[in-house]
Amino acid sequence: MTLETTLAELALRLGPRFSQAASALAHYGQSETHISGGLPDAVVFPETRDEVAMIARLCAENGVPMVGRGAGTSLEGHALALNGGVMIDFTRMNQILAVHPEDMLCVVQPGITREALNAGLRATGLFFPVDPGANATLGGMAATRASGTTTVRYGTMRDNVLGLEVVLADGRVIRTGSAAPKSSAGYDLTALFVGSEGTLGLMTELTLRLHGQPEAISAAVCGFASITDAVDCVIATIQSGIPMARIEFLDSTAVAACNAYAGTTLAAEPQLLIEFHGSPNAVQEQTERFAEIAEERGCKGFTWAQAAEDRTKLWRMRHNAYPAILALRPGATALVTDVCVPISQLAKAVEETRAEIELSPIMGPILGHVGDGNFHAILLLDKDNPQELAAAKRLSAQMIERALRLGGTITGEHGIGSGKLGYMVAEHGEAWGVMGQLKHALDPDNLMNPGKMVRQK
Amino acid sequence: MTLETTLAELALRLGPRFSQAASALAHYGQSETHISGGLPDAVVFPETRDEVAMIARLCAENGVPMVGRGAGTSLEGHALALNGGVMIDFTRMNQILAVHPEDMLCVVQPGITREALNAGLRATGLFFPVDPGANATLGGMAATRASGTTTVRYGTMRDNVLGLEVVLADGRVIRTGSAAPKSSAGYDLTALFVGSEGTLGLMTELTLRLHGQPEAISAAVCGFASITDAVDCVIATIQSGIPMARIEFLDSTAVAACNAYAGTTLAAEPQLLIEFHGSPNAVQEQTERFAEIAEERGCKGFTWAQAAEDRTKLWRMRHNAYPAILALRPGATALVTDVCVPISQLAKAVEETRAEIELSPIMGPILGHVGDGNFHAILLLDKDNPQELAAAKRLSAQMIERALRLGGTITGEHGIGSGKLGYMVAEHGEAWGVMGQLKHALDPDNLMNPGKMVRQK
Repeated sequence: MTLETTLAELALRLGPRFSQAASALAHYGQSETHISGGLPDAVVFPETRDEVAMIARLCAENGVPMVGRGAGTSLEGHALALNGGVMIDFTRMNQILAVHPEDMLCVVQPGITREALNAGLRATGLFFPVDPGANATLGGMAATRASGTTTVRYGTMRDNVLGLEVVLADGRVIRTGSAAPKSSAGYDLTALFVGSEGTLGLMTELTLRLHGQPEAISAAVCGFASITDAVDCVIATIQSGIPMARIEFLDSTAVAACNAYAGTTLAAEPQLLIEFHGSPNAVQEQTERFAEIAEERGCKGFTWAQAAEDRTKLWRMRHNAYPAILALRPGATALVTDVCVPISQLAKAVEETRAEIELSPIMGPILGHVGDGNFHAILLLDKDNPQELAAAKRLSAQMIERALRLGGTITGEHGIGSGKLGYMVAEHGEAWGVMGQLKHALDPDNLMNPGKMVRQK
Repeated sequence: MTLETTLAELALRLGPRFSQAASALAHYGQSETHISGGLPDAVVFPETRDEVAMIARLCAENGVPMVGRGAGTSLEGHALALNGGVMIDFTRMNQILAVHPEDMLCVVQPGITREALNAGLRATGLFFPVDPGANATLGGMAATRASGTTTVRYGTMRDNVLGLEVVLADGRVIRTGSAAPKSSAGYDLTALFVGSEGTLGLMTELTLRLHGQPEAISAAVCGFASITDAVDCVIATIQSGIPMARIEFLDSTAVAACNAYAGTTLAAEPQLLIEFHGSPNAVQEQTERFAEIAEERGCKGFTWAQAAEDRTKLWRMRHNAYPAILALRPGATALVTDVCVPISQLAKAVEETRAEIELSPIMGPILGHVGDGNFHAILLLDKDNPQELAAAKRLSAQMIERALRLGGTITGEHGIGSGKLGYMVAEHGEAWGVMGQLKHALDPDNLMNPGKMVRQK
């Protein structure tokens, strides 16, 4: 079949859940950030695993690229159809299929969002902790190996996906992992697909590890005189073994943006946002121990958020940091960088980045999940101004190169997508070639999200 | 080169660290359990990464199989040279290369044992938590994705290996992971090699996550009227969010064996061995909350081990369970099974296994890391008695089939090795074929620990 007859066959089989409308295709040619490019030839909205397998078989037989997509919140243009083909929008596969409270796990379809999942779990006393900020889908979060504000305590998607159902490039369906808490039975295929960004297969079902809703929660904000003081406080806290549930950093520019957007009145200085989970006594003790450590590093006093509504306000402010920062410069586009370094190198990495941004023509608040050594700069630019785009790209390149020099990684949680492919060889060297060998083994015709992740032939 | 000339070349290059002595080869043809078979043609003792790469290149060029080996404590015959070739004994590569306390990680060679590692870390206030019981090497533990008594709190090798240096089948050397706490940069090669049992490459360096030595530790033993009561207590404890550091189960036969071997006087009934780590207050609170839960399930009283020497005695007893059980029947060989099930199915799985062993001619105590849903039966048999061997294999097969029926896995921590290859298709179905594709991509001539892990052509 040609591309046209393959699409006609898909249209026939999927009816109204197939589209070639120009407006739809244009929508899928954009991303959340400055990265764009590549229009799909069609978009499909499967509702079942068998439909996904049928789509994959048809595409594989006819050499048509396949690109999976969840909520489209990724920040590196992961879901752009660079070689055209079929965009597979998973948002209709959005069900919780099973909850097993006694085993603290659930089984979901890939298109459910993390907010919908947690709403569905509320009555069980359990929750799914991974929180990248955006209301992403679980399939998208698994595909990019997402993490976020709670990772310091609960881990990343790597730690919280127990098993998968995956449709391979040739339409075969496999299951990875099991409902057992651990296994030594063979290669860790679950870990191979988590973070593979749709280049090895399409996830159609995820088994997720759940956690008990904490008995008590306490949150606070505390300001510091310098970035180094704030980061040193984080390092000392982690080394002391205090099990922080969240420990987030905002630099003074990010704080000002959040204040303006959320109507809060935090001092415009480096701030840590922290949260403790546990029994009431444990939370009390952790809080006191953290306060001691913070005060030794010159913390300028705490604003505690004990009541649920105050905490909600605090974390809503943090989750809205991205739009808040965008609002600093109406009409601007963001170039969002994401690096992760050993925590001993974090103050140096953040300070140097801050200094470089100050010397540039670009505005760029810094914020991050500092308990993981992970931080972001959100560089605001006019995408029609080539000087600004070049400056932002240079700043991002400097951050990436510094992260590698300091023993870190080019991305802590956003992934590679279209934006960071050029840095893979710098991080992985010969191991990038091994990734290519694995890709070739499972997708020899390069039909799964082509143009991403591996060296292009 | 022929096999002979390849070995002659290795002998020339390695001098006294090359052996073809019959006694040495015979030693490597045995394993810790009833599983044996396959003699290597030679054994080598490399001291550097470059020597391992040289060995791999020579073997690859000449089609000679390579089998890595650490302390030889694996329980499924992982390191048997089924197709002959070169046995690579890593025990001379046993150094701690670096400790980074501020990043809570260290870099080690694969041949260091976990006891030597923790002795080397003692002054840092940090420790490496994975504890499979045997004094295995870290390389062997990573290769089998080992876990053990502390996994309920600190995770398995999957969770505690941050990065690797690996010599591939063709002698190329790659590095996986980084010193950053997390990364979204590409396929998770670290996770692919951890648990690959030497079939994809040979680890020459490991970057390991360390943890702070707990401020306070408390341990206890408590007996229950039935297996179900003990396991229900475990489930309720985990669901209540109490962060147990260890929660181990011994059935009454295992208790009797440990008493006889260690001179302890525990009641011969199902016993839980537990340990709490944290601040003094946190340990106190966890202890009290656990005691309440245990008493509700009919716990017959606790024996607390607060002093370090009492805890040492308790865990030495547990770690010596294997020789203690072997001593129940002098001269016997053990068939050690290892399965892992969802924790909701654990009582059923253990009770049914216990009943089947009672009906058999074989003695077989049950014990396990019940916080992970993981348990073992140690089946004692005269290996020259075909009826007993057949009975033990039947019991093991029943355990494995039940674990799969209940949603679990054929091995929680011992791995596949030579013993469980026949069950891979039952657990993984079509995904086992995918493992074969990955193996073929990285080791097309099947020279890395051949006869293990994947379908044989």
